Amino acid sequence: MKSRLDEFQEYRKRMNERILNLDHLGIKRFFNLDTNAYIEGHLDVKTKELLGLVASMVLRCNDCIDYHILQCVQAGWDDDSLIEAFNFALIVGGSIVIPHLRHAVETLDLVRKEVH
Amino acid sequence: MKSRLDEFQEYRKRMNERILNLDHLGIKRFFNLDTNAYIEGHLDVKTKELLGLVASMVLRCNDCIDYHILQCVQAGWDDDSLIEAFNFALIVGGSIVIPHLRHAVETLDLVRKEVH
Amino acid sequence: MKSRLDEFQEYRKRMNERILNLDHLGIKRFFNLDTNAYIEGHLDVKTKELLGLVASMVLRCNDCIDYHILQCVQAGWDDDSLIEAFNFALIVGGSIVIPHLRHAVETLDLVRKEVH
Amino acid sequence: MKSRLDEFQEYRKRMNERILNLDHLGIKRFFNLDTNAYIEGHLDVKTKELLGLVASMVLRCNDCIDYHILQCVQAGWDDDSLIEAFNFALIVGGSIVIPHLRHAVETLDLVRKEVH
Amino acid sequence: MKSRLDEFQEYRKRMNERILNLDHLGIKRFFNLDTNAYIEGHLDVKTKELLGLVASMVLRCNDCIDYHILQCVQAGWDDDSLIEAFNFALIVGGSIVIPHLRHAVETLDLVRKEVH
Amino acid sequence: MKSRLDEFQEYRKRMNERILNLDHLGIKRFFNLDTNAYIEGHLDVKTKELLGLVASMVLRCNDCIDYHILQCVQAGWDDDSLIEAFNFALIVGGSIVIPHLRHAVETLDLVRKEVH
Repeated sequence: MKSRLDEFQEYRKRMNERILNLDHLGIKRFFNLDTNAYIEGHLDVKTKELLGLVASMVLRCNDCIDYHILQCVQAGWDDDSLIEAFNFALIVGGSIVIPHLRHAVETLDLVRKEVH
Repeated sequence: MKSRLDEFQEYRKRMNERILNLDHLGIKRFFNLDTNAYIEGHLDVKTKELLGLVASMVLRCNDCIDYHILQCVQAGWDDDSLIEAFNFALIVGGSIVIPHLRHAVETLDLVRKEVH
Repeated sequence: MKSRLDEFQEYRKRMNERILNLDHLGIKRFFNLDTNAYIEGHLDVKTKELLGLVASMVLRCNDCIDYHILQCVQAGWDDDSLIEAFNFALIVGGSIVIPHLRHAVETLDLVRKEVH
Repeated sequence: MKSRLDEFQEYRKRMNERILNLDHLGIKRFFNLDTNAYIEGHLDVKTKELLGLVASMVLRCNDCIDYHILQCVQAGWDDDSLIEAFNFALIVGGSIVIPHLRHAVETLDLVRKEVH
Repeated sequence: MKSRLDEFQEYRKRMNERILNLDHLGIKRFFNLDTNAYIEGHLDVKTKELLGLVASMVLRCNDCIDYHILQCVQAGWDDDSLIEAFNFALIVGGSIVIPHLRHAVETLDLVRKEVH
Repeated sequence: MKSRLDEFQEYRKRMNERILNLDHLGIKRFFNLDTNAYIEGHLDVKTKELLGLVASMVLRCNDCIDYHILQCVQAGWDDDSLIEAFNFALIVGGSIVIPHLRHAVETLDLVRKEVH
């Protein structure tokens, strides 16, 4: 049975393709800029993925949180570091972030279960 | 089978009626003001619906996006114009808007499929 | 059959336990501070729960709205007062709050049905 | 010499008059609804002013904070209660609220100094 | 004597040049995308400037409001239309937008005074 | 002559002391949690300061941006890295972040001038 994480990833992939097929130059260029913001530069990929995770949490976007947890795990962040980043976002964003913290912890548990 | 758009429209209609039945003067008057903000004035209805769509996207509210896409299509906006408005909202609101862009594009596809 | 409110309460309880089991000192202390912000002090519990409800609505967080409606009902607020608080949040936050107003009214109806 | 609070109150009064003189029916009606949201109803004025203060802090609007502190003091809230409300908003909104907490505390100090 | 609007325009011009001189490819490309989002396409320039104004108001950014009022006036929008757009943003964003409505009305008054 | 950065730091220091002197247990504990969120743990101080900067930019808080730029420079981040972080926040948060990008670049220029 598919987890909600598998479903999200399929939906995300399918809709991103649909969006690029709209063939709008501005949208395509923005997607490019967005991809480039996460590649190795003066800051390394691992740091940037963590920046993406914390930004997603304080801006309270569950889809973005799921995506960046997956990216963070792939970039090599361990659970202790990610939980510290969760705490960081909670302190910056306050108790209104708690529902997204629940979501983030559940997602991390799903990711670890699927990987092992 | 009902699409998620049909379900949203039924839920919206049912709950708006329930809200008006609460018979709270302030809420009823606000709903009136909200309706009036979209009627023909110095700005035409078509322009106002587009304002509603872009505001909904940058404020990242999927229910509002669905409602305003339906209204925009009914007001006569074609796909090219709506996609340009999507791009506009994406540039103003940044990559945190992308999950809502996915939702908007999926909704527009649903609307066009149901109409034809 | 479980209502969406029962499901939310179970999910909330399960994930809060999971979060506390992460055993992160900062997160645990923040959860404590959050609990303490709602206990009797110079302001009474009833007032604080209403503050929590209005803050949740203007910040547009459905899970927080559900939680605080449950707390408000338990603290003794009647429907007329809660609907006045809904109106308050609507005026402060504008029509972008309407989808959350629908959610809040539906939740209050569910709570009243389950209690009786 | 005028405090920043006096200047704010004069500016607010002058611009509100200018806005009403625009004679836009929707804006005038909204200002009415906004006024009505704060008058005695099922909730008393004192509670509503506190709701306004906390909403202003979590939404991070300094002008709104100043206005509602003035209203809260006039409604009879003492410092201990207001500081508890400040704490409440800080916990809900997180450390991003701290600059507005500084502003709120400074404003409360100004208000108390001017009153005595 | 310089108005606050002149000062804003000079500051904006100077800092935008400074930003482009940082010579960061991503930032320069984003500025390009942002410029392109406002040029004639399926939507005309006039409509797009109004979209920018309403988005700025509901997102509560005074600098953005000033910039887009200037652009809207240059694009040919008259006061009645702009005030209707102000009302629109007020209804969508609620009373938390009022301080920015004051700012917008003051800015429009400044612009009209400088032009004549 | 004092730069706006000096004035901000003095104001921040003075008001933080005033806030701690309010002697509210919840507020003092929150300030402690906030301090602790930035100390060395599984994530190092340097990374955490960058997280604070990006969170401040996407949440659009100029005071927070100034504070975190100062902290980032002190933690050893060079300009190239900080500008990359600025770009990151711009892409996540969109053009509504641009006024805060101007502020951030001006602040970084001030910091570098004062240091040398």
